[in-house]
Amino acid sequence: MIQETLITTVNLQGEVHIAPMGVHVNKDQCIILPFRPSTTLDNMLKTKTAVINYCDDVRIFAGCLTGRRDWPLLPTRQIEGYYLADTLAHAELKVVRLEDDDTRPKLFCQAVYEANHSPFQGFNRAQYSVLEAAILISRLDRLPWEKVQAELDYLRVGLDKTAGEREREAWGWLMEAIEQHRQGVAA
Amino acid sequence: MIQETLITTVNLQGEVHIAPMGVHVNKDQCIILPFRPSTTLDNMLKTKTAVINYCDDVRIFAGCLTGRRDWPLLPTRQIEGYYLADTLAHAELKVVRLEDDDTRPKLFCQAVYEANHSPFQGFNRAQYSVLEAAILISRLDRLPWEKVQAELDYLRVGLDKTAGEREREAWGWLMEAIEQHRQGVAA
Repeated sequence: MIQETLITTVNLQGEVHIAPMGVHVNKDQCIILPFRPSTTLDNMLKTKTAVINYCDDVRIFAGCLTGRRDWPLLPTRQIEGYYLADTLAHAELKVVRLEDDDTRPKLFCQAVYEANHSPFQGFNRAQYSVLEAAILISRLDRLPWEKVQAELDYLRVGLDKTAGEREREAWGWLMEAIEQHRQGVAA
Repeated sequence: MIQETLITTVNLQGEVHIAPMGVHVNKDQCIILPFRPSTTLDNMLKTKTAVINYCDDVRIFAGCLTGRRDWPLLPTRQIEGYYLADTLAHAELKVVRLEDDDTRPKLFCQAVYEANHSPFQGFNRAQYSVLEAAILISRLDRLPWEKVQAELDYLRVGLDKTAGEREREAWGWLMEAIEQHRQGVAA
């Protein structure tokens, strides 16, 4: 089972990096599979730690893809690092094993601390629309524009019916990025 | 903002009814809008109470649409009723105002008790695929089959990539129901 989460890591200077990432979670163990090159991978290899943020603020997912990487953080408890102040829950991880790969190494991790900060608010279709649009953006170069447009039209239905302010703001950032990409291609 | 949740209500004999429902949530206040006819509406008008279950087990959403309504329950704390044993969080509600309507009355509610049982596990694309497919099923009579099929093909991508066992089981129930509907239409 793959969960879409936000991973926070630090480098040896203590600088934080936030990255959206799908993780394979199985109880208190999980596998993180970053595509090379990856700051998350570099940081995890150096510090042997990472934080999974189980966060429902889709602005942070969309923000990381559109140059908005400055989000409030709080210090972790059992490892050196930070978690997102806005996350519903988080897990502090130690890397226990590395399965190396030229494209996508596997980092096997063990949770050493977990915290449940705020309750789940139920499913929101607009949050899913934002996530799927974010995944589309990462594949813009490989997809025909007609397909992108058809998927966005589909995703916009759930968005328009159910979004709150956070979801609308995140969607706006993604549409701006797609528009800029199109103008770049057309230029 | 609309959250997809499971509402549990009881009738005057104490019999429980579970129903998937989109609710408008704003802090500790919320609006429930059941379409008539609705057992949830009948129960809420009689008892003036309801429970919102913030639950990520999509089998219960798919199950309620496909005749599987028997899910483990626990007694509520501040009202007479039950919440889903498997829910991540729940809120116990009192109805404070009714805005009646022939199609879709509005029930304004106030939370009198809230509990956070288990942490959010991150977004899972397969869970949203199941939810969207469940919404499709409720509209099968009004949509051309080609459109249903195209949407299912799209939703199946996220499902195949990210589902756990619960999501695959729920998807299977929905596909079975769609197949039965098609055979009924063709017969």
